[in-house]
Amino acid sequence: MTLLKVDLNSDIGESFGAYTMGLDEEVMKYVTSANIACGWHAGDPMVMAKTVETAVKEGVSMGAHPGYPDLMGFGRREMKITPQEAKAYTIYQLGALDAFVRAAGAKLRHVKAHGAFYNMAAKDEKLAMAIAEGVKAVNPDLVLMGLANSQLVKAGEAVGLKSVHEVFADRAYNPDGTLVARSQEGAMIKDADIAIGRVIRMVKEGKVEAITGEDIAIQADSICVHGDSPQALEFVQKIRKALQDENIEIMPI
Amino acid sequence: MTLLKVDLNSDIGESFGAYTMGLDEEVMKYVTSANIACGWHAGDPMVMAKTVETAVKEGVSMGAHPGYPDLMGFGRREMKITPQEAKAYTIYQLGALDAFVRAAGAKLRHVKAHGAFYNMAAKDEKLAMAIAEGVKAVNPDLVLMGLANSQLVKAGEAVGLKSVHEVFADRAYNPDGTLVARSQEGAMIKDADIAIGRVIRMVKEGKVEAITGEDIAIQADSICVHGDSPQALEFVQKIRKALQDENIEIMPI
Amino acid sequence: MTLLKVDLNSDIGESFGAYTMGLDEEVMKYVTSANIACGWHAGDPMVMAKTVETAVKEGVSMGAHPGYPDLMGFGRREMKITPQEAKAYTIYQLGALDAFVRAAGAKLRHVKAHGAFYNMAAKDEKLAMAIAEGVKAVNPDLVLMGLANSQLVKAGEAVGLKSVHEVFADRAYNPDGTLVARSQEGAMIKDADIAIGRVIRMVKEGKVEAITGEDIAIQADSICVHGDSPQALEFVQKIRKALQDENIEIMPI
Amino acid sequence: MTLLKVDLNSDIGESFGAYTMGLDEEVMKYVTSANIACGWHAGDPMVMAKTVETAVKEGVSMGAHPGYPDLMGFGRREMKITPQEAKAYTIYQLGALDAFVRAAGAKLRHVKAHGAFYNMAAKDEKLAMAIAEGVKAVNPDLVLMGLANSQLVKAGEAVGLKSVHEVFADRAYNPDGTLVARSQEGAMIKDADIAIGRVIRMVKEGKVEAITGEDIAIQADSICVHGDSPQALEFVQKIRKALQDENIEIMPI
Repeated sequence: MTLLKVDLNSDIGESFGAYTMGLDEEVMKYVTSANIACGWHAGDPMVMAKTVETAVKEGVSMGAHPGYPDLMGFGRREMKITPQEAKAYTIYQLGALDAFVRAAGAKLRHVKAHGAFYNMAAKDEKLAMAIAEGVKAVNPDLVLMGLANSQLVKAGEAVGLKSVHEVFADRAYNPDGTLVARSQEGAMIKDADIAIGRVIRMVKEGKVEAITGEDIAIQADSICVHGDSPQALEFVQKIRKALQDENIEIMPI
Repeated sequence: MTLLKVDLNSDIGESFGAYTMGLDEEVMKYVTSANIACGWHAGDPMVMAKTVETAVKEGVSMGAHPGYPDLMGFGRREMKITPQEAKAYTIYQLGALDAFVRAAGAKLRHVKAHGAFYNMAAKDEKLAMAIAEGVKAVNPDLVLMGLANSQLVKAGEAVGLKSVHEVFADRAYNPDGTLVARSQEGAMIKDADIAIGRVIRMVKEGKVEAITGEDIAIQADSICVHGDSPQALEFVQKIRKALQDENIEIMPI
Repeated sequence: MTLLKVDLNSDIGESFGAYTMGLDEEVMKYVTSANIACGWHAGDPMVMAKTVETAVKEGVSMGAHPGYPDLMGFGRREMKITPQEAKAYTIYQLGALDAFVRAAGAKLRHVKAHGAFYNMAAKDEKLAMAIAEGVKAVNPDLVLMGLANSQLVKAGEAVGLKSVHEVFADRAYNPDGTLVARSQEGAMIKDADIAIGRVIRMVKEGKVEAITGEDIAIQADSICVHGDSPQALEFVQKIRKALQDENIEIMPI
Repeated sequence: MTLLKVDLNSDIGESFGAYTMGLDEEVMKYVTSANIACGWHAGDPMVMAKTVETAVKEGVSMGAHPGYPDLMGFGRREMKITPQEAKAYTIYQLGALDAFVRAAGAKLRHVKAHGAFYNMAAKDEKLAMAIAEGVKAVNPDLVLMGLANSQLVKAGEAVGLKSVHEVFADRAYNPDGTLVARSQEGAMIKDADIAIGRVIRMVKEGKVEAITGEDIAIQADSICVHGDSPQALEFVQKIRKALQDENIEIMPI
């Protein structure tokens, strides 16, 4: 019998200066990987230091979460940058976070692009390759996390990085494996039980029902969860329990 | 006979986006250490990548040059930050630069604070200790460069870092070893020959004449030179020749 | 019988991008003047547009709240800028906010510096004069709000601006009329009833008991209140009621 | 006989902090309108104050030159912002500049978007309308400058603003009146005499030869020139002389 396992990841360390965002200390009790903001779309050095400290204390595996240089837009707005810029921005941000991780006596484990950087790299091969090359140039032992089946995980594999396919419990999928745009009807799976059922099927069967009704293949190495509200935290606890009930081991990538 | 040696360092990589500053490629032919801006008071990831590449090509030893988060003031304005912030800002910036250095297959050698961060840390023991602790936490093999006799080099020594005393050819000294403020009459040594004579005496005799006329002790491990104008470049070449004529070896820290 | 009147002001519009701060819509129901952040230490153009819209709807008088270029420090950290910079930074920020006010068909009424800019200008005559001159140069009909008895209100009067003395209900005063530093024991008046009693005495008698026990003269044109928590809102309602019970009219400056 | 006239405009005030860009004082001797950067893609309050002072001294008509919040990319990178954001960003930046102009006792005359903001608004009707509405909301007497025949000038006309069609001497045109992308062969007109001949024909005949060889209609209200190099300055002087030789009056919009 194959042992099934999956990683639970969450975006963490998104506070900035006097601004607080996310219930970081709470959600880090339930996830196995933290994608830590690096000071561009969110986060600042003081927040990064504290976030790394909490992750170490909770035994959560740490990753860099580089984003566009757009704090005002929280890194969610598309910016047309060159592959050279994408590579340099990745190196800069992962290096900054890595220093805090090293200072805490720990090891950085993965890199996951944020927001519009993540979404554009999922579709744009050149952008994806630039990110993968930036990560590899700094440390070839790092793991690249990207949307399941995306250009980003393909780029990671192409340059020889260990790549991790990420899935979303609360999002609908197109037949080609991309996420249904938030602006579209039915993009969000609002019922927690349905969302959890879908995720468990992804992990166990490698399949998910697309928004068009057909089954598509999907590789679920890591599940993205949120910690920005009490309801989100409740969902994380619920999904953990459901996975455990199915004998799926929850462990870092 | 003791072999005399000294390092020649220069602030490099201070361009930003569409803005160009400094004759970096030229000055890197003559110095042995480059203090590379890390994107806060100057520099950006594209500039950092290119600067590291040039330094590697020219065989120049590389250091991080962290500054205050004040691009508009070029890091030259005093900011009252806490020691915790100073430590975190140092870790962030040195980590970002270190990633470019690692991506280029090289090793970061030193850290030198920039502008007002440098000047405030020269006098403020707590700020100096915070910087030293930040550097040590990331990598205890890094060298801390600071104003000769300053709190910063003392802090470096206190935490067990190799520390380098930096001197200025073109600046007058107070009897207590601090630099005469630029706003004061006689603060700048404008005659190149006099400046060079003073530096050679610092290296050979460990002494410099203070603005008040008396000799004071000074340790000259590294000489700061500039590359922001053709005249500055000429001076660097002149000081190199003068040092060589005195059989003082010019080599990285 | 003289009619007693006082203004209630609050710092508003301090959200930024995805970050929310303050219960702006609530507090604007109770105050008569809003000091609106201008995008430097807090606020952004979208937040400014919405804040101005709410202020117009609630009939709240509007002022610009310029701060240091230090979003990461929320404008609370001292920065050593020149008077020329202080003047230019004031003009820039008040102009930006004024455009939103004009676009809403309203009129900007006052300017109040924020955080460390406010505190430094309270003591530094040159900085205070620079701010006053900046305000006057753009529009001599604007009112300058500053700490009661501070260099800032004096500077406003010196250049011919209408100036408003601001008092704090929840802060202790030194015998010279300055605020007791937050770091000092007893700096904060935590008991709401005592705080309200002090404020009413300031308005009615022009006096407050300093931390040393003696009475000092103080001019209370405007009272600063906060809207960052439900407790703060409760206090604003309580102070409103107490002022009304004393027949003190609450009206904009 | 109709008197022919045209405006010569240039982007000005693009220095930032310690970084200098453009020969502003020189070029302002030859142009009739200055598009002044507002601190987002370039410029800062000190630069704005000095630029406005020089423009007033030289009698140059002043306009705001708002750009994307992307100093690192000099506002040249496409960003996907909403129309609401475009409107708010326009209001913010034009207001900031307007305050310096008012402080100098002068009047702001026009608004021209910068870089990618200009180019995207030339094609995107919603973005163009948002900019036009922002300008009009602050001051309906302002003139909106945009690429000849673009969505931006159409939007200006639609909301009732006086709009100005801008042409480029050194750029090739597509048959639909848009500029040939810089990346395309033949996009730049490198021969000064040919460029000048084309511009004079635009002003006199309202026609220009497209890159495909056919003549297209074009309205030349203002000609964009540059002041970033001695060669650019020479070209400005040359174009001035050629226009005067043709009895075309050079005057602000």
